[in-house]
Amino acid sequence: MKEIENPRDILKIDPSAIVKTYKKGQIIQRAGDNKPQTIFVNQGLLRSYIIDTKGKEHIFTFAPENWIVGDAEALEFNEPIKLFIDCLEDTEVLIFDNNSLFREGLSREDISKNARMLYRRLGVLQRRVLMLMGSPAIDRYQYFLSTYPELPNRIPQRMIATFLGITPQALSTIRSKIAKSGN
Amino acid sequence: MKEIENPRDILKIDPSAIVKTYKKGQIIQRAGDNKPQTIFVNQGLLRSYIIDTKGKEHIFTFAPENWIVGDAEALEFNEPIKLFIDCLEDTEVLIFDNNSLFREGLSREDISKNARMLYRRLGVLQRRVLMLMGSPAIDRYQYFLSTYPELPNRIPQRMIATFLGITPQALSTIRSKIAKSGN
Repeated sequence: MKEIENPRDILKIDPSAIVKTYKKGQIIQRAGDNKPQTIFVNQGLLRSYIIDTKGKEHIFTFAPENWIVGDAEALEFNEPIKLFIDCLEDTEVLIFDNNSLFREGLSREDISKNARMLYRRLGVLQRRVLMLMGSPAIDRYQYFLSTYPELPNRIPQRMIATFLGITPQALSTIRSKIAKSGN
Repeated sequence: MKEIENPRDILKIDPSAIVKTYKKGQIIQRAGDNKPQTIFVNQGLLRSYIIDTKGKEHIFTFAPENWIVGDAEALEFNEPIKLFIDCLEDTEVLIFDNNSLFREGLSREDISKNARMLYRRLGVLQRRVLMLMGSPAIDRYQYFLSTYPELPNRIPQRMIATFLGITPQALSTIRSKIAKSGN
């Protein structure tokens, strides 16, 4: 699911957006940081995650090319940042001002387009909540594949398992089941 | 969190929105229905939920006065409806066309306002995902209280427990802990 077709669209939203490059493994944002960032991925792959009180990582989203990643809760409710964002590959991003999505200079058509993007993300998040609550692990894996078709070979299996909330062993079982059934 | 301050705002969004009333216990929408509805609660209390493959209910959201409830996934991706919506109290609603949020006739200011509402909901949903993934039950209960301050006395304890993904016994323990600590 590409949220934005072209990096130029981000520059239209926020002409003062800045390009930054990061190396694989670099952390762009940490829980507790002051200023939540909104990040468009030009090239590469980011991950957002939390670390719970027991020190365990939980992956919230992956963000490959043309995805946007940010801490919507921190941005919207002026809450402390909860999400870590780091690089799973060397990555080039555009960092832009989230408030620009509906700024004065944009045409009504642009604003509607940005709003539809938010609505689309709502659909994705609803699906994620329902999956976490009530779906068998195999359905969650198929949701992962349909949301991120380009990622299975770019992400370590243990991270996919973390995203799904299952063990790497359970993921391995699911993958062989799918392979055998020919889906 | 009131998403809309006044029912008149919905009529501004969609002048052809229709008022309907339902009795406590009535089901407004079922999984598998054809046409996903977007529903603003004028008076009363709705609940959206799924029933998993084992027949177990999982509550997605509550919607008291001034909240909007709908199946964003079905609406946005033309997917089959997954969410049941039913009435926990006698309820009066306005059913409106979700596509009207960004329709032609609205001013730029109205569209921006509606878009901010979507963004706010994104923040709420992000919090829900992070809670489901990595928070102790007591934190989840406090999130419930801050999101729905008016609800603890309007909803049976077992439903609050379902929303939190814990047993009614665990909820009872949490409530007495909070009462003892004076928070």
